[in-house]
Amino acid sequence: VGKPIGIALIGCGVVGTGVLRLLAEHRESIEARIGSSLEIRGIVVSDPSRERDPLVPSALLTTDGEALVRSHDVDLVVEVMGGVARAGALVRLALETGKHVVTANKALLAEEGVALSALAEQKGLDLYYEAAVAGGIPIIRVLREGLSSDRVRAVYGIVNGTSNYILSRMRSAGLEFAVALAEAQSAGYAEADPTLDVGGGDAAHKLTVLARLAFGQHVRTEHVAIEGIDRVSRVDMQFAERFGYEIKPLAIAQRLTDGRLDLRVHPALVQQDAALAGIHGALNAVYVHGELVGPSLLSGLGAGAGPTAVSVVADVVDVAQNLVAGAPARRAAGVRDANAKVSVQPIGELVSSYYVRMTVRDRPGVLARVTGSLASHAVSVEQMVQQRPETASSEVAATLVFLTHEAREQDLRAAITEIDASQDVVSPTNVIRIVDQA
Amino acid sequence: VGKPIGIALIGCGVVGTGVLRLLAEHRESIEARIGSSLEIRGIVVSDPSRERDPLVPSALLTTDGEALVRSHDVDLVVEVMGGVARAGALVRLALETGKHVVTANKALLAEEGVALSALAEQKGLDLYYEAAVAGGIPIIRVLREGLSSDRVRAVYGIVNGTSNYILSRMRSAGLEFAVALAEAQSAGYAEADPTLDVGGGDAAHKLTVLARLAFGQHVRTEHVAIEGIDRVSRVDMQFAERFGYEIKPLAIAQRLTDGRLDLRVHPALVQQDAALAGIHGALNAVYVHGELVGPSLLSGLGAGAGPTAVSVVADVVDVAQNLVAGAPARRAAGVRDANAKVSVQPIGELVSSYYVRMTVRDRPGVLARVTGSLASHAVSVEQMVQQRPETASSEVAATLVFLTHEAREQDLRAAITEIDASQDVVSPTNVIRIVDQA
Repeated sequence: VGKPIGIALIGCGVVGTGVLRLLAEHRESIEARIGSSLEIRGIVVSDPSRERDPLVPSALLTTDGEALVRSHDVDLVVEVMGGVARAGALVRLALETGKHVVTANKALLAEEGVALSALAEQKGLDLYYEAAVAGGIPIIRVLREGLSSDRVRAVYGIVNGTSNYILSRMRSAGLEFAVALAEAQSAGYAEADPTLDVGGGDAAHKLTVLARLAFGQHVRTEHVAIEGIDRVSRVDMQFAERFGYEIKPLAIAQRLTDGRLDLRVHPALVQQDAALAGIHGALNAVYVHGELVGPSLLSGLGAGAGPTAVSVVADVVDVAQNLVAGAPARRAAGVRDANAKVSVQPIGELVSSYYVRMTVRDRPGVLARVTGSLASHAVSVEQMVQQRPETASSEVAATLVFLTHEAREQDLRAAITEIDASQDVVSPTNVIRIVDQA
Repeated sequence: VGKPIGIALIGCGVVGTGVLRLLAEHRESIEARIGSSLEIRGIVVSDPSRERDPLVPSALLTTDGEALVRSHDVDLVVEVMGGVARAGALVRLALETGKHVVTANKALLAEEGVALSALAEQKGLDLYYEAAVAGGIPIIRVLREGLSSDRVRAVYGIVNGTSNYILSRMRSAGLEFAVALAEAQSAGYAEADPTLDVGGGDAAHKLTVLARLAFGQHVRTEHVAIEGIDRVSRVDMQFAERFGYEIKPLAIAQRLTDGRLDLRVHPALVQQDAALAGIHGALNAVYVHGELVGPSLLSGLGAGAGPTAVSVVADVVDVAQNLVAGAPARRAAGVRDANAKVSVQPIGELVSSYYVRMTVRDRPGVLARVTGSLASHAVSVEQMVQQRPETASSEVAATLVFLTHEAREQDLRAAITEIDASQDVVSPTNVIRIVDQA
């Protein structure tokens, strides 16, 4: 058995506590696997006086993250604090002072991952982050190792459990968005400020990390076209179902035949028998299409102390094995050419089919004018449903729902702008993309 | 760039050719990842004169596997020949003469994997085998690395694509077993001798490999209770559907609360909305339940040159990275205690619910006698369907189908033996286990 590996733990919330519990409960098997012992040298918290789980050794709590990270008996810094500013400063300091890093921080990786990977590589250090995307699913390992010999064509993910929970509940219980959101919040899934979840920002962070690994390019979150799930209402869910679809919160990264990347996060209609349609509630899933390996689906719990801690500790074991073997930075960071320009297809050039729901005045000629506008922008209709007002109070408005054939997004948007500007339409038209490959 | 890594390729069928193609087409990215080049030193075949894909360098073909494996410029032996005797001899020779090994050979691993792992560990060599189980699914990596920090409770797999294809076609097209088998054979899924696939032996080999990794015990194929899918007929499929189930070819390994292992391969009724019910055709899937990580599903293509070659080459990259980093045998083989006795629950002690189909004479008192026999063996009925003969020619026989509550298997078997021995029953009763956790 070699000399102990010193660990600095940054953050001690539910995930940090989960990591401490796992390391304590599985100490024997983990040490047998590593051939050395792991020793926690200190735990960075903002308030050491707060009440904590009794398994947290209070003597190790400190507010001085810099001193702990710099400490010579720390080999590995485990960051589970979250947030970008302070966590980023400590992770950078760790790499600058020769410490390996395991982090679960997708926002930090999305913003600074490229620079941090370059710094780690330059210093010959490991930077691992399995827990940053889809906690319980080892997708980082699969992209980095299992598919290292294939060429990834596309990644389709459900990577925000809150959004998936909300849309699942809207569908299964017929709830409106606001009601399902409130339910998710009281169930502990959604944050008090749910913007990052339901607005798509969190999924875009994760997609950024996945796309870098899948395509070896320096994708940034700004490259991702983002739409939140708040545009989906109960009637959309019902119409989708009528056409044989479900609405799922997707994150999509694909390599187009012209070499550009298509990167987007949005709610999407997927066929009811599609692989991702079966992923309900707080589950996450990632569907990877490899050139040779074909389609492959991974699903599991995306968040929570247990799954996240398992992924963090799996990384700790991996880095520790590298250390014991005297082979840190055994794996390249995965991005081949640090200076390659990322070429992204603007969302207006996307070719997709669409679900379009309009609320129109119930008067003669409306359907002809609407379909005429669509046709004049080269958008052709594949299916249509017209729903007459059910109650006397809404007698002026009827609902028109179209599924289009494939069209260019900018053409569709131009048609909708024209239609929405007319007197025929009562309220803004809702457009949701259809994804047939997921 | 370090010195080239010499590879001996054993076998050059579809998988071997796929490996050569992948290494050629992705040479640049693979070498960038490894930091060294890979060089094929020789290819062992039985008949060098056979016509081959032009990308196979005929100058490298040899029938003298022993000489090639012993060669000093070979660092890594890649075995994709299959079969146990000759492949096993060459893999052993490789390890004995200090060569790392990547193999796709599940039969060899099932039979000799424990001894081969021990030999590799003793010699400080890598033995990797991602392609041996569920070709396109990186389940070995996930069990070995991603879940290294969790405790696996159970593994449920669909790991034989031929069996899954046959049962899927029986269901979707209403085919009888023999017809679906013939179709699978002409589609190239099933071997001329399909015994190993449809009899469950192939799945048992794979389950053996998975169970060793999941539980760290020296599981052998003899520990697995095996039933083939040939016991499933079209009517069973139809009755199952009527009760809300599908019939899938499962491989199950679970750790019971008393510490014993439950290891079995058999067709099983699974609920139509269960995760594994959605795995159709030649797809494979593995559903892993970790104590902390919860349930997690991986699915993808199980066989074929592409997926298998991707997994083989991913292992080659992994071993090469270890070599370049000077850290071979970085990972322990996964089995903690080589001498620990494996304690397996005898199948008779299994507690399960069951689907039972009887063909009985259509005469008074039969149902009372049959349910009486079941009750006297502590088997209670949860649901029952009786189907009267439809045509005059079969007027003597009616069909009785029961779904039982949970019962001990030996009790159920005793009841069926008693019932089948009576004058009430026309032909042997068919029993299929129900699995509610998959």
